[in-house]
Amino acid sequence: MQRYKVVIQYDGTDFFGWQIQQDKPTVQGTITQAMKTVLRSEVSVVGSGRTDTGVHAFGQVAHFDAPASVDVNKFLYSVNSLLPDSISITNMYEVDDEFHARFDAKKRGYLYFISTNKNPFFHRYSSFQYNGLEIEYLNRLSKVLLEYRDFASFTKNAKEQDSTECILYQAHWRKAKDLVVFSIEGNRFLHGMVRAIVGTLIQAMRDEIPLEEFKEIIEQKDRSAAGMSASAKGLFLNRVKY
Amino acid sequence: MQRYKVVIQYDGTDFFGWQIQQDKPTVQGTITQAMKTVLRSEVSVVGSGRTDTGVHAFGQVAHFDAPASVDVNKFLYSVNSLLPDSISITNMYEVDDEFHARFDAKKRGYLYFISTNKNPFFHRYSSFQYNGLEIEYLNRLSKVLLEYRDFASFTKNAKEQDSTECILYQAHWRKAKDLVVFSIEGNRFLHGMVRAIVGTLIQAMRDEIPLEEFKEIIEQKDRSAAGMSASAKGLFLNRVKY
Repeated sequence: MQRYKVVIQYDGTDFFGWQIQQDKPTVQGTITQAMKTVLRSEVSVVGSGRTDTGVHAFGQVAHFDAPASVDVNKFLYSVNSLLPDSISITNMYEVDDEFHARFDAKKRGYLYFISTNKNPFFHRYSSFQYNGLEIEYLNRLSKVLLEYRDFASFTKNAKEQDSTECILYQAHWRKAKDLVVFSIEGNRFLHGMVRAIVGTLIQAMRDEIPLEEFKEIIEQKDRSAAGMSASAKGLFLNRVKY
Repeated sequence: MQRYKVVIQYDGTDFFGWQIQQDKPTVQGTITQAMKTVLRSEVSVVGSGRTDTGVHAFGQVAHFDAPASVDVNKFLYSVNSLLPDSISITNMYEVDDEFHARFDAKKRGYLYFISTNKNPFFHRYSSFQYNGLEIEYLNRLSKVLLEYRDFASFTKNAKEQDSTECILYQAHWRKAKDLVVFSIEGNRFLHGMVRAIVGTLIQAMRDEIPLEEFKEIIEQKDRSAAGMSASAKGLFLNRVKY
């Protein structure tokens, strides 16, 4: 057997998230099925992490084991032909048997897109905010996030999780024509964390709360202290670094 | 009454084309309904031309008459709120009563997008060609189009149309990362003409036919002399000039 690492893009609109589920279309389930058909054997596809219903990916990473005799180009072509238009495996590499897509991931980066104009071509891939977003203010608030480690305020089931500690390396907003893009990178993310952060930051901007009050939201370590979650369709798992 | 000109973007995937039809979702029908609701009166929305089922628009143009008292910004906001995510009116101008979106159009420009990699985010907006397209060769063939006026070979029902004569100002291919873009501009286009041209050019490239043979296809003035039509989803009405 040979272990392979793959990079996967997907439009998550029509999937019940990454993780395989009985009787529901999921990205992991769809890829597993396509690989099984090509390999003519069972296969286990292990992702770097889950993405929720409706969340997209530019660069999800997964690993799986296949016979060493697999021709990478032919395999990719066959699997991509079987996969729906909404999923594409863009790269495939031979890796060491020890490589693990989830445990070995050092950094995960997400992007969140917001349209500031109604745009028929972005509506599946962004949430819409009619009124102007104050980028500078959002960046001042976002910088505060980097001072903290415990993000329990931004996840629903904090107590069921082993740890609510994350190291954030970057949290930054920028304007790109009719889009506003939030970029966040960390060693790991809690369930629903990016969407809760985006929703809370926008709410804080609209309410014009001072930085100290935003710090208190984080320090309460309580989901109810923070704002609503931003919708899934604007969120992209951008890349995973090893 | 005051006449208005509007610029419209739409994702045509889920519409049976531009033109209003009984019991089928169309772009013209959907816009007419939204405007009727806002104006509380009948309204007739006249487009620059039809687009087929599945064809998109970056800049379709239409005109309609409304009471002179309409507040343009409020009206646009209300109509866009009623329109589905897949349609957006991007601009609205007061125009002279004589202005006619179809009869006054001087130039119409279309874009056709082809993905050269499987891309989940472009699949609704491009057709897919796995093998490389020879841009130079396609451009040599496309230049030939500009020498002709009669494009009967690129429309299905040539005999039912008043005229099959068009003046083409531009027909050009370029590469933009993982996309190949065909841009064509003319005073008018016959029904299905752009898709028939794109399909025929790609077929001619694959078959490596000489320029003379391509000229014969045009000169036969017979749809069966040309190639298959490229799929609708890659086609965009880009802009209309007056």
